[in-house]
Amino acid sequence: MSIVVPEWRRAYDEVRRYSMALAEPLSAEDQGVQSMPDASPTKWHLAHTTWFFETIVLKPYLPGYRPFDERYAYLFNSYYEALGPRHARPQRGLLTRPSLEEVHAYRRHVDESMSTLMTRADPATRDAIEPLITLGLHHEQQHQELIVTDIVHALSCNPLMPAYRPEPSDGEAAPRLRSTRPGPIEWLDRAGGVVGIGHDGRGFAFDNEGPRHDYLLRPYSIAHRLVTCGDYAAFIADGGYARPELWLSDGWAAVQREGWTAPIYWVPGGEKSDQKSGGCGNWRVFGLSGLKMLDPDAPVSNLSFYEAAAYAEWTGARLPTEFEWEAAFDTPGIEQMTGHVWQWTRSAYEPYPGFRPLAGVAAEYNGKFMVGQQVLRGGSIATPPGHTRPTYRNFFPPAARWQFTGVRLVRDN
Amino acid sequence: MSIVVPEWRRAYDEVRRYSMALAEPLSAEDQGVQSMPDASPTKWHLAHTTWFFETIVLKPYLPGYRPFDERYAYLFNSYYEALGPRHARPQRGLLTRPSLEEVHAYRRHVDESMSTLMTRADPATRDAIEPLITLGLHHEQQHQELIVTDIVHALSCNPLMPAYRPEPSDGEAAPRLRSTRPGPIEWLDRAGGVVGIGHDGRGFAFDNEGPRHDYLLRPYSIAHRLVTCGDYAAFIADGGYARPELWLSDGWAAVQREGWTAPIYWVPGGEKSDQKSGGCGNWRVFGLSGLKMLDPDAPVSNLSFYEAAAYAEWTGARLPTEFEWEAAFDTPGIEQMTGHVWQWTRSAYEPYPGFRPLAGVAAEYNGKFMVGQQVLRGGSIATPPGHTRPTYRNFFPPAARWQFTGVRLVRDN
Amino acid sequence: MSIVVPEWRRAYDEVRRYSMALAEPLSAEDQGVQSMPDASPTKWHLAHTTWFFETIVLKPYLPGYRPFDERYAYLFNSYYEALGPRHARPQRGLLTRPSLEEVHAYRRHVDESMSTLMTRADPATRDAIEPLITLGLHHEQQHQELIVTDIVHALSCNPLMPAYRPEPSDGEAAPRLRSTRPGPIEWLDRAGGVVGIGHDGRGFAFDNEGPRHDYLLRPYSIAHRLVTCGDYAAFIADGGYARPELWLSDGWAAVQREGWTAPIYWVPGGEKSDQKSGGCGNWRVFGLSGLKMLDPDAPVSNLSFYEAAAYAEWTGARLPTEFEWEAAFDTPGIEQMTGHVWQWTRSAYEPYPGFRPLAGVAAEYNGKFMVGQQVLRGGSIATPPGHTRPTYRNFFPPAARWQFTGVRLVRDN
Amino acid sequence: MSIVVPEWRRAYDEVRRYSMALAEPLSAEDQGVQSMPDASPTKWHLAHTTWFFETIVLKPYLPGYRPFDERYAYLFNSYYEALGPRHARPQRGLLTRPSLEEVHAYRRHVDESMSTLMTRADPATRDAIEPLITLGLHHEQQHQELIVTDIVHALSCNPLMPAYRPEPSDGEAAPRLRSTRPGPIEWLDRAGGVVGIGHDGRGFAFDNEGPRHDYLLRPYSIAHRLVTCGDYAAFIADGGYARPELWLSDGWAAVQREGWTAPIYWVPGGEKSDQKSGGCGNWRVFGLSGLKMLDPDAPVSNLSFYEAAAYAEWTGARLPTEFEWEAAFDTPGIEQMTGHVWQWTRSAYEPYPGFRPLAGVAAEYNGKFMVGQQVLRGGSIATPPGHTRPTYRNFFPPAARWQFTGVRLVRDN
Repeated sequence: MSIVVPEWRRAYDEVRRYSMALAEPLSAEDQGVQSMPDASPTKWHLAHTTWFFETIVLKPYLPGYRPFDERYAYLFNSYYEALGPRHARPQRGLLTRPSLEEVHAYRRHVDESMSTLMTRADPATRDAIEPLITLGLHHEQQHQELIVTDIVHALSCNPLMPAYRPEPSDGEAAPRLRSTRPGPIEWLDRAGGVVGIGHDGRGFAFDNEGPRHDYLLRPYSIAHRLVTCGDYAAFIADGGYARPELWLSDGWAAVQREGWTAPIYWVPGGEKSDQKSGGCGNWRVFGLSGLKMLDPDAPVSNLSFYEAAAYAEWTGARLPTEFEWEAAFDTPGIEQMTGHVWQWTRSAYEPYPGFRPLAGVAAEYNGKFMVGQQVLRGGSIATPPGHTRPTYRNFFPPAARWQFTGVRLVRDN
Repeated sequence: MSIVVPEWRRAYDEVRRYSMALAEPLSAEDQGVQSMPDASPTKWHLAHTTWFFETIVLKPYLPGYRPFDERYAYLFNSYYEALGPRHARPQRGLLTRPSLEEVHAYRRHVDESMSTLMTRADPATRDAIEPLITLGLHHEQQHQELIVTDIVHALSCNPLMPAYRPEPSDGEAAPRLRSTRPGPIEWLDRAGGVVGIGHDGRGFAFDNEGPRHDYLLRPYSIAHRLVTCGDYAAFIADGGYARPELWLSDGWAAVQREGWTAPIYWVPGGEKSDQKSGGCGNWRVFGLSGLKMLDPDAPVSNLSFYEAAAYAEWTGARLPTEFEWEAAFDTPGIEQMTGHVWQWTRSAYEPYPGFRPLAGVAAEYNGKFMVGQQVLRGGSIATPPGHTRPTYRNFFPPAARWQFTGVRLVRDN
Repeated sequence: MSIVVPEWRRAYDEVRRYSMALAEPLSAEDQGVQSMPDASPTKWHLAHTTWFFETIVLKPYLPGYRPFDERYAYLFNSYYEALGPRHARPQRGLLTRPSLEEVHAYRRHVDESMSTLMTRADPATRDAIEPLITLGLHHEQQHQELIVTDIVHALSCNPLMPAYRPEPSDGEAAPRLRSTRPGPIEWLDRAGGVVGIGHDGRGFAFDNEGPRHDYLLRPYSIAHRLVTCGDYAAFIADGGYARPELWLSDGWAAVQREGWTAPIYWVPGGEKSDQKSGGCGNWRVFGLSGLKMLDPDAPVSNLSFYEAAAYAEWTGARLPTEFEWEAAFDTPGIEQMTGHVWQWTRSAYEPYPGFRPLAGVAAEYNGKFMVGQQVLRGGSIATPPGHTRPTYRNFFPPAARWQFTGVRLVRDN
Repeated sequence: MSIVVPEWRRAYDEVRRYSMALAEPLSAEDQGVQSMPDASPTKWHLAHTTWFFETIVLKPYLPGYRPFDERYAYLFNSYYEALGPRHARPQRGLLTRPSLEEVHAYRRHVDESMSTLMTRADPATRDAIEPLITLGLHHEQQHQELIVTDIVHALSCNPLMPAYRPEPSDGEAAPRLRSTRPGPIEWLDRAGGVVGIGHDGRGFAFDNEGPRHDYLLRPYSIAHRLVTCGDYAAFIADGGYARPELWLSDGWAAVQREGWTAPIYWVPGGEKSDQKSGGCGNWRVFGLSGLKMLDPDAPVSNLSFYEAAAYAEWTGARLPTEFEWEAAFDTPGIEQMTGHVWQWTRSAYEPYPGFRPLAGVAAEYNGKFMVGQQVLRGGSIATPPGHTRPTYRNFFPPAARWQFTGVRLVRDN
């Protein structure tokens, strides 16, 4: 999303409205639930993103701004140490108050104040707040993705397995996600050599995407499409979850400790496999629209890094580094690079050479998570339109399974 | 409560309505929250008590009864092993579906079917279901108390500390709870000797209240009133939570592990102690009506057995056995024996001589909890009217603090 | 053991020597190991019992006594809050220093000082220290039993399953432990009525055995012998560990959480059951002499209270109260009341009416454990000669399985 | 260490003897203790390294080899999934049997068989076993370092804080470890550009050190010396452990969860700071020779990656990548690159481009740990002579503190 001065209001309104639209299919009860410490209630996301604008824009820049409720600073801060103490993360699901209605009122209060500020700001203020608002909108978009992944996880914990929202009526969601060439992987050659990596500074990017720098690559080939559910079902059928030699040590420990035997949202069916399952056993897969028969051509999703790496090992290929992924973004013939699943890379999440965090409160935004996590590239069905970029670096711990995360393979040339 | 045939419908309707009335001050969001494994959401209580009638009365006795939703048997069973598998207790707060509205519809469905059954039952059926309905109503009353204690705990976890319901407008709740003689304890002598203990079988009682049997007591004296907040504040002020010699070993371990320094709902005030606190420091106490200034004459509540026992040790007196408590129920001059707080006894929860559990599903009702718990006697402000009796044996683990539990002292003569 | 003045030295020497004899079959490595927080290394027991004499006798009563090492007070205090801070219990196995040799030197140092004190004490000192020394010796005897139970547990954790000591060469250990009438249980009638319970104060007893008081019993019958391994194997064969209706709720939770399927030291055999197992499957049982074929006539041992109670439920009989047990001690025809296994009772460990703890340091000895534990009566093969009495109250938490604990049944008349 | 054919026996004997020499100052009791799951008893290290030779060399290559004890395969396997099931890692401290003497006999048995094999091997066998023996010796050297770090940790858990071994009598250990220029850091410039990284295959190297490949570096400067205890004490004195903005998010969580306020082996002194402490407060530091006054010029050691990174952040410089470190190995004027402390790098432990694990059992050696760990470079005082190389990649999880791990700074040019 490119936000230039005359588009402020439109961008702000669109992003803020989109959050509300995502929550729309959910009851107040649904919006309050937290199914694990890593996830948050929808209501909390709606309030936290609002708190962000209040804290970094309204309080410093709108003269006479009156906070909606001073106590919200405590309730809706997430991890910003510089912004004071916080409600404990695993207890977000206990906040039945403020009610959803009050959070809606909070959003309106802040939106109106933002509108006032954006209307009245003199040029100097405008220069000061424009990057903060831009950051706030991208921040809210990140939480939009979490709204979806977190509620899907919560609903998956309910034995009734309710759907977040009905399947699009035209039945086109799945086809749209499939590769146009779902057959055997085509290996697209990449020559290697010095490539430019990272964002060049034109338009918005997060601090962790820069500085742009040269990186030396060896020749490799990259798969033209993502790994599918059918591909992954074959790995399971071949005993993938019972063969320690395929797994990283920490991954195998997770398999044993957690009793993993399939991706988190795969549910074995009770009846005999039918025609439609295409040799994939009788798996059903839980997702945005509830529990559906596995689609062998759809990208496999909700894998941990450990599962992604074990799968790659099983194929004899490997996961790409984030540099290989980025350099291959525009490779002719490549498909599904964004909008399907985030793609695990072999790269740990580290600072680029010369990396300096943003100044001020945003300093805590990305840099402090640069250990113990793996980089993901691309973007998923839950990523808001316009949010991601080829240089975008998403990151999660290697055991995380509740994001829409999948695999693209590479191999050495 | 005595339920005879002509009063069936009235008793059933009253108890069922009372559950709904208790939930009335709470939003759907409030009714879904579970703040710890030992507590349950209001909505769950509403559904579970309904499931109980459906399972033990409607399914076996109403011909052609169609369950509201077959899946509810899994969701709303609590601990009845004989009645099949169950949703994990700590995950009750994740059930945003069925919605509160659906649970209300479930209650109506069962209530209407119960009405049909009670209207049409022939005498033989009537004889069969009367004790089951009576059990179901007392069961629901037990959950009515839990509805209150569980939501108070949940609200206490919210930094906003919202009230469950407004204080009665006439401000008479606290006075009603105070002793008429709140001064020094008057010690009422009891002669000892053989006393009859337990329920004699006339009218309803739980299986654990019988058989009635003789018990040999030594002479003792019992306090005319409960221990007050003022009494307990003096214990704290005297270093009660820092003196291991006053505590049972497990209690001291809990103090250190959990960092206890006061009862669970006591909040130290930020300002200087004022006149009104009567030497009690500046404590505020969270309860049904939110956070209030400590009332020195009100009974201290929400103590664990460990705290109750340490307090008693500090005074030089002791806790009563459940036999001493029961024998003293009608002692002239004694006050606050029921309707204020459940009173911890020194007695572990064990079977009475000759105890046999109820037959059928109710066999699991009481007997299987007879280890590791302490008996409480009396009844609290959250106990529904008519639910308790002098022979009533409540029980909780010694570390439990979220019930309305307090102390009455005795001493040897 | 009765210790009168002229026998001081002999009693002291005997008890102290017996501790060393128990440790004799063990290497220094063996004596340092701690297999779980509830158990302690042999070396620690040897030092702790020595510290007890140093602390309560030598320091206050032997003029000019020089502690062997001031730091041992920190290392070898167990739970005496009044005696200062302590090394954390679960870390006792980390104390490779002081070495076993140094602990031996510590014992010699204290024994020599005790000898000096006992020789020189004037009558007033003698009166003061006599009860302390007696307490210290009974205390050391308690730890002698723990030396055995703790090392057996530690050795059971070693896949090599080494024996603590060889079986007595004459093979008479097992026969000695069997009932003379190992056939069907004979039920010995007891009339009930008022019985005297507790120690009468003549000779040594622990504070928790008194005061002696009257207790009212109903008529009952008591089994002439202990439950055997053969009896218990039938319970297992009947699905005992898979039938929740037989278990207390906490017990069933332990079965599921810990995966219990048999007593802690029972090992299923790999081969077909042979003649010798007498229909008991092919169980082997780990014990003092290593892993042996199950003896169907030997008393079952190392049961938790939960297992004991479930077994009793399965038989239709029940566990005795501690009062029933004590009253039946001298019943004609009764066998195996002591010296075989401690016998779980249905009684929680509570103070007797009028109980007052010992004064001084010994105040912490028993009273502070009076919640959450069950009373055991009798005495085991590991109880030192002369240590126990009919009024002796042993106690452990209901889940404890590493003591030599078994079952005797009673039933109502 | 370069092992060529005629030197086999000498290399084998030297390495094997060195393990025994390391254990020599320790009693059998000391050698059995395990202070945490990540550490192992000395005795276990002695046996495990022996099992390695038995398993990968003797069993396949020495005809008629009779294992010392078949059960040792279960007891002394560490993490090799391909080599069968294993004794649980956290339970190694429970293995009081086999005794230390038996482990010594095991070593002799294997050493003698190895001697036989090395003497008699025909050229083909020689070619086959030479790389396996070389691997086994480097493997044993790795465990030699762990013998030292693990026992120091165990001894640090003992309140007596005993020394592993006396300080070298000439007092030269510390001076030898100090930089020759302990004053302000001198920043040595490095030009950047393409550098060769990794081992070139001449002589032994672990699989993770290759393949050698080109890497593109930016210009940077590297500190001529390690960070000292004095440097680090200033960080503490400046509130380093209380300032979240200096820490990675996971690091700050560790600080709070574990209560870190200084390096693991730093002990605050009770007395006033004296002259000798050079402004470093009154810290004492536990190490190989027990508790010593902090030496401000000695390299700081036993830091976690989190502490290393927070320290670097505080200085305004940063940690090197492993590529920067390797490229700077021979920089003129650089000191303390090996033999002092392992140096944390900013690089996560990942496969080099084109990495393929060793074949056979050694496949599990390094590759399967390539997630969630950070690379360390250099070598420590506990690294056996000749074991490390400039290309050597050590790795540990970021929270590990019991290794001899420190910091060298770099900064961008």
